[in-house]
Amino acid sequence: MSVTYPAGFVAAGVTAGLKPSGRPDLGLLVGDRGTTVAGVFTTNLAAAAPVRLSRRRLAEGAPRMVLVNSGQANAATGERGDEDARAATAATALALGTAPEEVLQCSTGVIGEPVHMLQLLDGMPTLVAALGPAGGGDFALSIMTTDTVDKQVTTEVDGARIGGCAKGVGMIAPDLATMLAFITTDAAVAAEDLRRIALAVVAPRFNAITVDGCTSTNDTVLLFASGAAGRQRVEPGSRRWVALADGIEEAAEMLAQALIADAEGGTHALLIDVEGAASEADARVLAKAVAGSALVKTAAFGGDPNPGRIIQAIGSSGVIVDPGRVDIAIGDVPVVIGGVIPPTYFEGPELADAAKARMRQPQIEILVRVGEGPGRSRSLGCDLSYDYVRINGEYTT
Amino acid sequence: MSVTYPAGFVAAGVTAGLKPSGRPDLGLLVGDRGTTVAGVFTTNLAAAAPVRLSRRRLAEGAPRMVLVNSGQANAATGERGDEDARAATAATALALGTAPEEVLQCSTGVIGEPVHMLQLLDGMPTLVAALGPAGGGDFALSIMTTDTVDKQVTTEVDGARIGGCAKGVGMIAPDLATMLAFITTDAAVAAEDLRRIALAVVAPRFNAITVDGCTSTNDTVLLFASGAAGRQRVEPGSRRWVALADGIEEAAEMLAQALIADAEGGTHALLIDVEGAASEADARVLAKAVAGSALVKTAAFGGDPNPGRIIQAIGSSGVIVDPGRVDIAIGDVPVVIGGVIPPTYFEGPELADAAKARMRQPQIEILVRVGEGPGRSRSLGCDLSYDYVRINGEYTT
Repeated sequence: MSVTYPAGFVAAGVTAGLKPSGRPDLGLLVGDRGTTVAGVFTTNLAAAAPVRLSRRRLAEGAPRMVLVNSGQANAATGERGDEDARAATAATALALGTAPEEVLQCSTGVIGEPVHMLQLLDGMPTLVAALGPAGGGDFALSIMTTDTVDKQVTTEVDGARIGGCAKGVGMIAPDLATMLAFITTDAAVAAEDLRRIALAVVAPRFNAITVDGCTSTNDTVLLFASGAAGRQRVEPGSRRWVALADGIEEAAEMLAQALIADAEGGTHALLIDVEGAASEADARVLAKAVAGSALVKTAAFGGDPNPGRIIQAIGSSGVIVDPGRVDIAIGDVPVVIGGVIPPTYFEGPELADAAKARMRQPQIEILVRVGEGPGRSRSLGCDLSYDYVRINGEYTT
Repeated sequence: MSVTYPAGFVAAGVTAGLKPSGRPDLGLLVGDRGTTVAGVFTTNLAAAAPVRLSRRRLAEGAPRMVLVNSGQANAATGERGDEDARAATAATALALGTAPEEVLQCSTGVIGEPVHMLQLLDGMPTLVAALGPAGGGDFALSIMTTDTVDKQVTTEVDGARIGGCAKGVGMIAPDLATMLAFITTDAAVAAEDLRRIALAVVAPRFNAITVDGCTSTNDTVLLFASGAAGRQRVEPGSRRWVALADGIEEAAEMLAQALIADAEGGTHALLIDVEGAASEADARVLAKAVAGSALVKTAAFGGDPNPGRIIQAIGSSGVIVDPGRVDIAIGDVPVVIGGVIPPTYFEGPELADAAKARMRQPQIEILVRVGEGPGRSRSLGCDLSYDYVRINGEYTT
């Protein structure tokens, strides 16, 4: 069900022939009239044509649906790419008898290759005919590229349902662009308030994950609110507002964890918590520096604690910390105290073995305290394995 | 010969027993009285004890020699580490009948493990006895950790000889810290002028290389000028100054290339040239973003051009560029023109095959033009291979 779990949404996903594999590659998610939408997009300057189109339509109008194609990313495609994105949304609008300005677009796939427009246009009637309140699952399948499993979540808060789906194996799929996530709710939320929720609780959940530090040209997260639950509009600051924001954050967090769990080549998840930083922004940079370090990631793959590598990542993150006040624990095992690796770590097997056991869990938890400041943040990552190199190195066009 | 090729230097390298492998692990390089020294150190805030000691002695006094141990990095070792570094230099000074303030120190090896001081002190008499004008080669061997070959260079400019050696397999050796380089000349140069040369032509050469983006706690480059060639002091701006700076830059560049050639797991070198940036600083960030991208590095390992990955790295480097004005060539093959991958790249095999052939050279040259600005920079990198993961992942303490 996922995105069609809340009332007020229909969706579909079909095989239109954009992917050589013959798997579903065209999806459509439509909210009832009055649905509000908020979006968060890649910061990559070489943003793909559909990203630029969607940004513009969100800024200028009131879109309520999104067409997604997988197979081609429509990035680095120049003016032809812009025309293709416009044509795809125009065809959608035509088939649904609505205005093109109501349609957003996302694409994911090979960078540079033009979208297979003939197949996309040929598939449109079938896609529109398949739209329905049970279409969330097919939609979730149609947006996948090298994902090994679909990623769907549902949850519920007081008076509103929340659903979501996502695709992406991190920023790491071969030439395939990247992370798309769609979250829906049947609460009624004004567009500008929905945007506040997107920025406050959705974007940070997805920004906290890192697979290989590569920010795609196509990353997009869209948050839809249909209002179809029939309750009053949720006003900022109210009890229902807090509950809704918490529910949406929970959905975002579950999708983020699902993305990391399916990260290509990943065999262990890395959960990095930083505490005591001067600010939350500092804590975020530190957490991502540890989660993104090639040396920490290979240590996680090898199941070796290597506390020196965590110190190294913290010291070169760009954030000013006092190395003499850094404490690090792997699971519940202290491996750095006041900036120093305890000599017992090298002298006897007990401490090193305990840390090693924590480092071999499916989810490796590293806690870094850098001082007494109020800033804290968590980052999710994964290890760097042979399979990452195989998937991204042996792939050839 | 390397560092003892210029007149006015003696050096030695011996096995003192700091490394379990039994390979040489203690080295000493001594310049005649009057030798000037300039240093460039890691920017990692968790700088090792010997780095902090050497920085201080260079700022406060006039050191003319350096003791180097391999096996332990003396990083994350707290006050004990500071005491060990001081004791090691005090022992050196005692053996040579000089002041401790004349002795700098470098360490490389496991982070966190205390330096094996007993072995170091035991080895000191042998080390000092071995000092000689032919000791440059032994010195170069004693500083190695997981290097597979020693890295020594010599060159000559009008009136002065230049020698150098380095160690480091990038920033990537398992727990082993990192890049050390020593360059000597028998020209006479005032200490403050030598520092200008170090910052202007030596630091940029080493800062341009990247293996995995991890900045070690121990990186150190020292530049020594003995004046023993017997010529007048080289004055800034003179013809001899320009020639000397060029010669030192050449030695630094040769050492940097030798480091990349020996990067662990590296099977191809990456030479990234960026042109047309708004400033040299922008060009440097862009070049390192491409050379350091996990997706570009795996593409280099796989021999696949993947121009979309280069665009992705440029777009997310943090430098403001107009994606529509980016041209990219691999070797002499244009793969991006005005931000667009030419459709012919996907339609026929010719263009893709030509790019692929360039991508399979031992040295892969990628030229990125981002506009019409004056900024240009080059970065050296290497691919990301199974061996990188093996070396850094399968290693266990």
